[in-house]
Amino acid sequence: MNDMKTKYFLLSTFLLLMVRWSCVYGEDGSRLWLRLETANTATNITGVKGMAMSELETYWLGGPVVLKRQKNLPKDGYTIKSQGAKIVITASSDAGMLYGVFHLLRLQQTGQSCDQLDICEKPFYDLRILDHWDNPDGTCERGFAGKSIFLNADSERMKMYARANASVGINGTVLNNVNAKPEALSTASLGKTKAIADQLRPYGIRVYLSINFASPIKVGGLTTADPLDAKVIDWWKEKVNEIYRLIPDFGGFLVKANSEGEPGPQDFGRTHADGANMLAGVLKPHKGIVMWRAFVYAPQSPDRANQAYLEFMPFDGQFADNVIIQIKNGPVDFQPREPYSPLFTAMQKTQMMVEFQLTQEYLGAANHLVYLAPMWQEFFSFVKPSSLKAMAGVANIGDDINWCGHHFAQANWYAFGRAAWNPALTPAQIADEWLTQTFGEQGNLSPLLKLMLESREACVNYMMPLGIHHIFAGTHHYGPEPWYAPRGLRADWTPPYYHRADSIGMGFDRTTTGSANVRQYPEALCRLYNDINTCPETLLTWFHHVPWDHKMKSGRTFWDELCHKYDEGVREARHFLAVWDAMQPYVDAQRFSEVQRKLRIQARDSEWWRDACLLYFQTFSHRPIPQDVEHPVHNLDEMMKFRIPISMYENPENGYNK
Amino acid sequence: MNDMKTKYFLLSTFLLLMVRWSCVYGEDGSRLWLRLETANTATNITGVKGMAMSELETYWLGGPVVLKRQKNLPKDGYTIKSQGAKIVITASSDAGMLYGVFHLLRLQQTGQSCDQLDICEKPFYDLRILDHWDNPDGTCERGFAGKSIFLNADSERMKMYARANASVGINGTVLNNVNAKPEALSTASLGKTKAIADQLRPYGIRVYLSINFASPIKVGGLTTADPLDAKVIDWWKEKVNEIYRLIPDFGGFLVKANSEGEPGPQDFGRTHADGANMLAGVLKPHKGIVMWRAFVYAPQSPDRANQAYLEFMPFDGQFADNVIIQIKNGPVDFQPREPYSPLFTAMQKTQMMVEFQLTQEYLGAANHLVYLAPMWQEFFSFVKPSSLKAMAGVANIGDDINWCGHHFAQANWYAFGRAAWNPALTPAQIADEWLTQTFGEQGNLSPLLKLMLESREACVNYMMPLGIHHIFAGTHHYGPEPWYAPRGLRADWTPPYYHRADSIGMGFDRTTTGSANVRQYPEALCRLYNDINTCPETLLTWFHHVPWDHKMKSGRTFWDELCHKYDEGVREARHFLAVWDAMQPYVDAQRFSEVQRKLRIQARDSEWWRDACLLYFQTFSHRPIPQDVEHPVHNLDEMMKFRIPISMYENPENGYNK
Repeated sequence: MNDMKTKYFLLSTFLLLMVRWSCVYGEDGSRLWLRLETANTATNITGVKGMAMSELETYWLGGPVVLKRQKNLPKDGYTIKSQGAKIVITASSDAGMLYGVFHLLRLQQTGQSCDQLDICEKPFYDLRILDHWDNPDGTCERGFAGKSIFLNADSERMKMYARANASVGINGTVLNNVNAKPEALSTASLGKTKAIADQLRPYGIRVYLSINFASPIKVGGLTTADPLDAKVIDWWKEKVNEIYRLIPDFGGFLVKANSEGEPGPQDFGRTHADGANMLAGVLKPHKGIVMWRAFVYAPQSPDRANQAYLEFMPFDGQFADNVIIQIKNGPVDFQPREPYSPLFTAMQKTQMMVEFQLTQEYLGAANHLVYLAPMWQEFFSFVKPSSLKAMAGVANIGDDINWCGHHFAQANWYAFGRAAWNPALTPAQIADEWLTQTFGEQGNLSPLLKLMLESREACVNYMMPLGIHHIFAGTHHYGPEPWYAPRGLRADWTPPYYHRADSIGMGFDRTTTGSANVRQYPEALCRLYNDINTCPETLLTWFHHVPWDHKMKSGRTFWDELCHKYDEGVREARHFLAVWDAMQPYVDAQRFSEVQRKLRIQARDSEWWRDACLLYFQTFSHRPIPQDVEHPVHNLDEMMKFRIPISMYENPENGYNK
Repeated sequence: MNDMKTKYFLLSTFLLLMVRWSCVYGEDGSRLWLRLETANTATNITGVKGMAMSELETYWLGGPVVLKRQKNLPKDGYTIKSQGAKIVITASSDAGMLYGVFHLLRLQQTGQSCDQLDICEKPFYDLRILDHWDNPDGTCERGFAGKSIFLNADSERMKMYARANASVGINGTVLNNVNAKPEALSTASLGKTKAIADQLRPYGIRVYLSINFASPIKVGGLTTADPLDAKVIDWWKEKVNEIYRLIPDFGGFLVKANSEGEPGPQDFGRTHADGANMLAGVLKPHKGIVMWRAFVYAPQSPDRANQAYLEFMPFDGQFADNVIIQIKNGPVDFQPREPYSPLFTAMQKTQMMVEFQLTQEYLGAANHLVYLAPMWQEFFSFVKPSSLKAMAGVANIGDDINWCGHHFAQANWYAFGRAAWNPALTPAQIADEWLTQTFGEQGNLSPLLKLMLESREACVNYMMPLGIHHIFAGTHHYGPEPWYAPRGLRADWTPPYYHRADSIGMGFDRTTTGSANVRQYPEALCRLYNDINTCPETLLTWFHHVPWDHKMKSGRTFWDELCHKYDEGVREARHFLAVWDAMQPYVDAQRFSEVQRKLRIQARDSEWWRDACLLYFQTFSHRPIPQDVEHPVHNLDEMMKFRIPISMYENPENGYNK
């Protein structure tokens, strides 16, 4: 080689090594749980070509694999079977094949034996959908991990997003905010949607759009959006045709109507059923669906928790067969703990799906480690999975390098997919899978499994134990503001509406002599919840105005128990730090330090929550904080003056930072 | 009455009531421990007229009292004896009479029986002196309670100051900073000093001045301040004559010479003895004294702790009989814990006095509750009180309404006076007296006594356990900055000079094979301190460079023990909050809330100390923080960036407040 060539050779070798190095050691969380190194062995993969084969060729380190098509398997299902030295994966579709391949790769990544495999899998729900609350300007409502990944839809990033979803079986994504801008249906915007759909399609992911019910007016230039108006119906037909010309496998619409100021059929004297069925009719020929949200509540209602039931029960049985009513897991709004929404057990003749929130709007944003699978498991202990048609999760994904802001928030994305595939998986099984793939050998990291499983209850303890709910700061929903009640603001947007603290006690009386919300539950539960002595203490102030001196199961008064619960939460949050610190030898430096910072914020915030809530409620209870718990270290007046000056599109970087 | 008169009458009655009310209920701490209500009964007080009688007439609620002069009693001593229904107080001086009266009033205020009294008291030290580090512009160096009380010398405030001092036997006050401006000796300034002396004299308090050794040049216009120069001596004679013409009972001079940049005899080729003896000679005819400070250390010394001994021992026995060498209790500088200064046991032929610091320069300023009497008791367990001539305390007094910034800092002023009167009083006795007078009935408040007694050790634990010293922030000496070492700053003003942390361990080797500082102590102590296995663990890193894995008495390694000590400190600081909160029913609202705020700062600061020190030292030890202690909640880099932008004349209002 001449000198120039030598230099070029050395330089390119160096660069290649660098790439390889950063691939192995660049621990920024960007690879999520898909951390298999590129396989350098030429393995014998044969059969159906496509994404599934491509994944295997890139990452599979084992023996020969055969990919086979087989018609009679369930949609998205697959089998994985050992045949001598070979492994045979069969599926009826490309998507099923891909799921099978990711299953096999998961076995490899978690160090399980791949001999004598005899696996037969199919998803519990056909629809496993992420809802992105992304706006056209790139902001994500309640997004704490940066801007929308769809804004520029970088192809490498889109590919990773699609692979991650496929690896856990997610097969649908709503690209835009339920508070939908009408422009989502503009021809220009649909062009972008098509481009994204084309990128996701190879991974078995369909795209959906949230629509603004007034689109016929705002986009179409009509004078009405009345769902029974012929011109309106024609406009929707034409628009839907336009969409399907671009995206033949388009999934359908998600609709937030007559909710929090969004337009809906009621604005034109029509019902939820009128609106949903009209759209369903238009989508039906294309096999599209309507996901119609039940998150509705009138501004001056005596009990917001009653509203969805009151508005939707009259239409039970009146929705078209491609309409699914999408209901948040609880009757109010993604609180750290709520009872399940009573609509789930009340509606008998309507297709329903649950909407979980992966983005931690009310659970510490991207600062607090809160593993959500136990919350979903709690929900499913009341609502039979088979009573639902589908599962949706409000995504916690943004363009942050680690996707979710907090490395452990990735676990909620992962867990959502796995739970939608199989709701019978336990939170521990899912966390175990995720941990091993994300951080490596489980032996040393087993304390993290315990930590994850305890994290949601800890969060409930330091934020809102004993059924307390919605005492969050007015705008950012991050910190405590149980006193927040600006003059003129609708009451159900202020914490006192929910906690109702007074000299006698605190809590919302939803018994038969109160708002009667208990009556929306099945008879047995109604009786259980209605009696303060049988109501689970975890929901006590949700259903009862509890006297400060009410005797709890622990023998303590309610006030003392409240203090103990907050104290317990703080201790748990601090304990997480010790657990994590002990993991230092087993975790790469970057992720160790980044998670440690977040856990420190969480521990400090837990004190903020404890102090703000106890000192504020103490102004009603006039009782001392028990001597056997830690006493507040912050001052109420200072906490009341404290503001986090952020919008609803940002993560509060530092928590309480007076 | 006509209308105007009626109005005037009502208004003045209202104002009188207001005054009375605020006197009874205005709980702002301005009354210190002198909280007796004005007596409205006419009691039979007879005998010697003066301040003593006036105090009794105003506050005494008991039976007849006779004040009698008796020549042969010791200076400042008194007797209090019951004679039938009467109480007779005898003293040889007005001051002694006043001390006797305050003793009687203290009995009344603390609810003790005043029947059958047979008390005979005299002070242990003749000189019981407060040193004010007050500047002519009204700032107080290391003052955390506002501006100098002498700036305007408001007569009500001066009277209260004098009464408070007299009530605990303090009989001298140095009005200005040891870093003395030459102007202190200007004729204008002396006029002000005279006015203050006139206000304090009736309460038995003499005034003293700190002087600048270069005054003959700076004030007198001479070309030298050489203490052996005849013109210089003449100038001093004339100046001292001027002072005594104004203030016939002037006490003398306090001198900081050749220390931290202040001028001194060494600047003219003379010695400390030359300088001190010259001034002593000039003051002698007036019965004035010289208090010559031994707080000296050269910038590049191998061990700052050795310096005072090295500079002063050669002159032992060479000081005039009206010179007292004033030595800080420890060899470095008012740290939370130091061994005693070895000069105290080494100098055998020199009059010595101890300088304690009441103002909490290194103990949390006016934010942390740290009762100092246990620290002084510790000192006196090594230095026999009888080996000293006098006691000085650097005052913690300013023009804050509550005098000392922190209500509990008043206890240190109180305790200083009481300990100077009688060093055998236990910290518990003094705290008990103070608490009862300051907060009322002791029955309910007894947990506070325990808290006070534990407070200094708690502070040591969360700031600098196990002999660590001087790792304070560079300028304000409030928070931790163990890493503080700006390029070019003299080494002994930086923490690494003191802690010497490295990969092997931490601590300053002052053994015989190190700086040999141990040799300055008596043989038995030298042997004890020199051996790492016999050295008290409370002073371990003071005398030894302790390996991280050194086995402690607890069985733990040194590193683990360090973590436990910090953890213990934090827990104690938090516990103080619980103790105080339980006192709410027994303490007025204002002081309760003000102390609570301070204790909350203290608890938060204790976490700051723990986290900054452990995380910083961990960068050397490379050892994990044990699982059974709480783990840091702050980040090292953020703490390292944090600054409190205050001068050395201010209290840091909020502590760590990122």
